[in-house]
Amino acid sequence: MDVNQEAKTFAAIKAVSYIENGMKVGLGTGSTAKIAIDIIGQRVAEGLKIVGIPTSERSHRQALDLSIPLTTFEETPHLDVTIDGADQVQVQTLAIIKGLGGALVREKIVAFASSRYLIVIDDSKVVQKLGNKVPVPVEVVQFGWSATVAHLKKLTGDIKMRKAENADGFYVTDGGNYIADCFFSDIADPKSMESSIKNIVGVVDCGLFLGLDPIVIIGSASGARLL
Amino acid sequence: MDVNQEAKTFAAIKAVSYIENGMKVGLGTGSTAKIAIDIIGQRVAEGLKIVGIPTSERSHRQALDLSIPLTTFEETPHLDVTIDGADQVQVQTLAIIKGLGGALVREKIVAFASSRYLIVIDDSKVVQKLGNKVPVPVEVVQFGWSATVAHLKKLTGDIKMRKAENADGFYVTDGGNYIADCFFSDIADPKSMESSIKNIVGVVDCGLFLGLDPIVIIGSASGARLL
Repeated sequence: MDVNQEAKTFAAIKAVSYIENGMKVGLGTGSTAKIAIDIIGQRVAEGLKIVGIPTSERSHRQALDLSIPLTTFEETPHLDVTIDGADQVQVQTLAIIKGLGGALVREKIVAFASSRYLIVIDDSKVVQKLGNKVPVPVEVVQFGWSATVAHLKKLTGDIKMRKAENADGFYVTDGGNYIADCFFSDIADPKSMESSIKNIVGVVDCGLFLGLDPIVIIGSASGARLL
Repeated sequence: MDVNQEAKTFAAIKAVSYIENGMKVGLGTGSTAKIAIDIIGQRVAEGLKIVGIPTSERSHRQALDLSIPLTTFEETPHLDVTIDGADQVQVQTLAIIKGLGGALVREKIVAFASSRYLIVIDDSKVVQKLGNKVPVPVEVVQFGWSATVAHLKKLTGDIKMRKAENADGFYVTDGGNYIADCFFSDIADPKSMESSIKNIVGVVDCGLFLGLDPIVIIGSASGARLL
């Protein structure tokens, strides 16, 4: 196991320790969330009683493979806890950038339906200023995506449509939309930036996760600590 | 032809008179827009040279049947004029409620990509106050729709999920989303309401069309006039 993998595992173990019998649990997407789901699967096999809602088709399959009981928002509109990764966490405000894994809309819906929101990261994700080399992923509807991107360009000139190897060359989210990765040198006011992005027609949502008051668990080679 | 149909036809004829050779034209959705597309088809058959972008699969099929040349936003990011219907137009502000036809997101993307926005309605659609018996349609992603509706309920308790006769009983938009029809007794500040709705995670967009500075054409039994 490399050092990075070890750090992620420490963070995942710490996060899963928050889960108790009877809880409704949001299951995140990404490399650390994947490890957390593996550990949850182990604990379920040992007798833990929970139900989960996955944030992506990928996490859904993983949970099914591990026989983690699943539910839906129609049955369970409110979750006790969600464990998910993040791409950046701003140290002063706990504002978050997420969605490089491509599941941002589902992740955000699950996050805002959870009483407690656990973020598992390593030290490299903790920043003083949001943005810089990490883009804010913006999910845009396929229809008219280039008109939507033209509107987004008023906020930043540095936008890359996320690519994938398929019919039309674009990455397609679980919701059937595209992702425009928007690069900002520094996001001075995340709340106002989120509002500006979301007010653009054709935008489904963006990877700024704000006001969630998360518990941020940082994994390192020597263990896990809270931010 | 009944009186209502006649009024719609007068409005549609007036709207189509704004279209000139070489224009890029947004083709709306709904009963009056349908008549306008029929008239455009006639003029194209007579030699008018335009290209169109339809706002729905329905208008797309209609335009194809009429041999109206079509384009995409990738080829044509900006349109000269769009003709579309509306469910309500506020007389003082020209703020609009649209989307009872179910195509609100595409209609809104096309509207905001157009230099000139023509709205064709009859007198019954002109109101002093937006809302009342006409709902604001809100397009929500399928995943977690009930969590999204729980957030919307903080804005109004009177919400009806739009139904259709298909597998899961819900109306599904061209973008693959659901529609929550949100009833408000009176929308005092449309701009702030739009912002509140759009800031909710899981919302794709809503049927408040603001700041478009539309040309509003009102059809009646005796002809068409501008608001």
